[in-house]
Amino acid sequence: MKLRELGEDRLIATLVRQLKSRRDVVIGPGDDCAVVENAGEDYFLLLKTDCVVEGVHFLPNESPFAVGRKAMTRVLSDFAAMSGLPRFALVTLIVRRDQTAAWTRRLYRGLQSVADRFDVVIVGGETSRTLAATVVSVSAIGVVEKNRAVSRDGGKANDFLYVTGKLGGSLRKKHLDFKPRIEESRWLASHFQIHAMMDLSDGLGADLPRLARASELDFEIDESALPRNRGCAIDAAINDGEDYELLFALPPNDGAALEKSWRKTFPRLSLTRIGRLVRLTKSKNRQSFHGYDHFA
Amino acid sequence: MKLRELGEDRLIATLVRQLKSRRDVVIGPGDDCAVVENAGEDYFLLLKTDCVVEGVHFLPNESPFAVGRKAMTRVLSDFAAMSGLPRFALVTLIVRRDQTAAWTRRLYRGLQSVADRFDVVIVGGETSRTLAATVVSVSAIGVVEKNRAVSRDGGKANDFLYVTGKLGGSLRKKHLDFKPRIEESRWLASHFQIHAMMDLSDGLGADLPRLARASELDFEIDESALPRNRGCAIDAAINDGEDYELLFALPPNDGAALEKSWRKTFPRLSLTRIGRLVRLTKSKNRQSFHGYDHFA
Repeated sequence: MKLRELGEDRLIATLVRQLKSRRDVVIGPGDDCAVVENAGEDYFLLLKTDCVVEGVHFLPNESPFAVGRKAMTRVLSDFAAMSGLPRFALVTLIVRRDQTAAWTRRLYRGLQSVADRFDVVIVGGETSRTLAATVVSVSAIGVVEKNRAVSRDGGKANDFLYVTGKLGGSLRKKHLDFKPRIEESRWLASHFQIHAMMDLSDGLGADLPRLARASELDFEIDESALPRNRGCAIDAAINDGEDYELLFALPPNDGAALEKSWRKTFPRLSLTRIGRLVRLTKSKNRQSFHGYDHFA
Repeated sequence: MKLRELGEDRLIATLVRQLKSRRDVVIGPGDDCAVVENAGEDYFLLLKTDCVVEGVHFLPNESPFAVGRKAMTRVLSDFAAMSGLPRFALVTLIVRRDQTAAWTRRLYRGLQSVADRFDVVIVGGETSRTLAATVVSVSAIGVVEKNRAVSRDGGKANDFLYVTGKLGGSLRKKHLDFKPRIEESRWLASHFQIHAMMDLSDGLGADLPRLARASELDFEIDESALPRNRGCAIDAAINDGEDYELLFALPPNDGAALEKSWRKTFPRLSLTRIGRLVRLTKSKNRQSFHGYDHFA
């Protein structure tokens, strides 16, 4: 079967099924970061890799600074999703021989600018030539306190669902200019009991079902309540992807306190209750929910 | 300036110059792995990323199992170079939509077979489509005891230079079938005072000058003494690349003891003294020394 027929989620499921685990692996493939034990310490190590591909995640004539910034930010956004702190990064750059040194320097300046902002050190990498599309792959390692790590699978029935910021419109350059919500997620996990969290990279339409599935639940959302970027219809807010906002589930009794403290702490970033997690029932037909699938 | 004129070593030098460091970075870019502190522990963390690219590191019709095996082994070979133990790996797979699911499953079986053999767990990864060449990027994290880590830069004048195994002939499928010398390097660093070590990925002709330069030394080798694979001329042993054998420097007084214990411990793998490190003099003209440059 071709990957375009199989789709990304099913491809990953089939690959993950082959893999072995070990006792020191706390969370393996399928969450935003992998979580592993760090002998005797009171924090876990978080591991994550991601990439941007020319023609898929950026156009050939895009500013290399913006491409570098995006490549680093995408990875750091996954640390936000686990309420972790990224520490070190490795960069793999795959590029044609006729590319200029100036281009690669500007790309690195973009990578570095985001790394600096979040106290991440680029400690190594690899370069290879290619005959075709440029690829920038970034891996990072970080830490999270054992009592603060948040995964996708802890959601409970009736939990309120929240998203930070606004959704949709990624193609209008927003996909090159976004922030990893690290400060926000660190604050959330230290002040509230966050049951489940992830970052929205493929769009709410793809990512919310993943969070619900990981928690063995279903969800109900009020589509008209979705926070939308200017000029975005509901469908765009659900399916454009590359929002890099946080989606999380919280006990309903904590909702009012959260909303109040959030406004005080992050007055410039909206927080919107979009619905709730519910028990699994017969599968519903959600035509508008699909999000971005790399292979579809 | 185009990368094909600049060359790989100068490209990396120019990129690394931009990067910032931090106190917990023990060895940053430029060695086989990055080495970082792990708060309060008596071992360092080792970080490494690497990739294989279709049309560069493997042909389109190559067995996906062999490609997966190569992608994982290349990374583990860098842990051998630091006498470290790899523990966890992340896999980024960039592939066309018309690739089959069976191909990717076989690729993963290749990755997994090497990971299993060296007790490495694949804990996560990323998939993306591309319009062009397939890329498999593997990042790994591991550990090394603080008193056992070996870098490239500790060579002393008069140190004997050794290589494991035989060199040259990588294109005759050998580049798809090699072992990371982890067991050997762990043994070396626990029994002898290894001053400097690396794995030979771009060929002795590219890699030995890197080790000498990192140690601020020059080298003398007896080209006729180089251990060569069957059918390989001296030039092939120096410049073919992808040998993935260990190159290391040892105090000359330890040479006899090393050679004797090695033969007992690893009777099936040759160990050859190929020359020595010497003080820097005026640069010599070594036409036969170039190795593999990704961009040249």
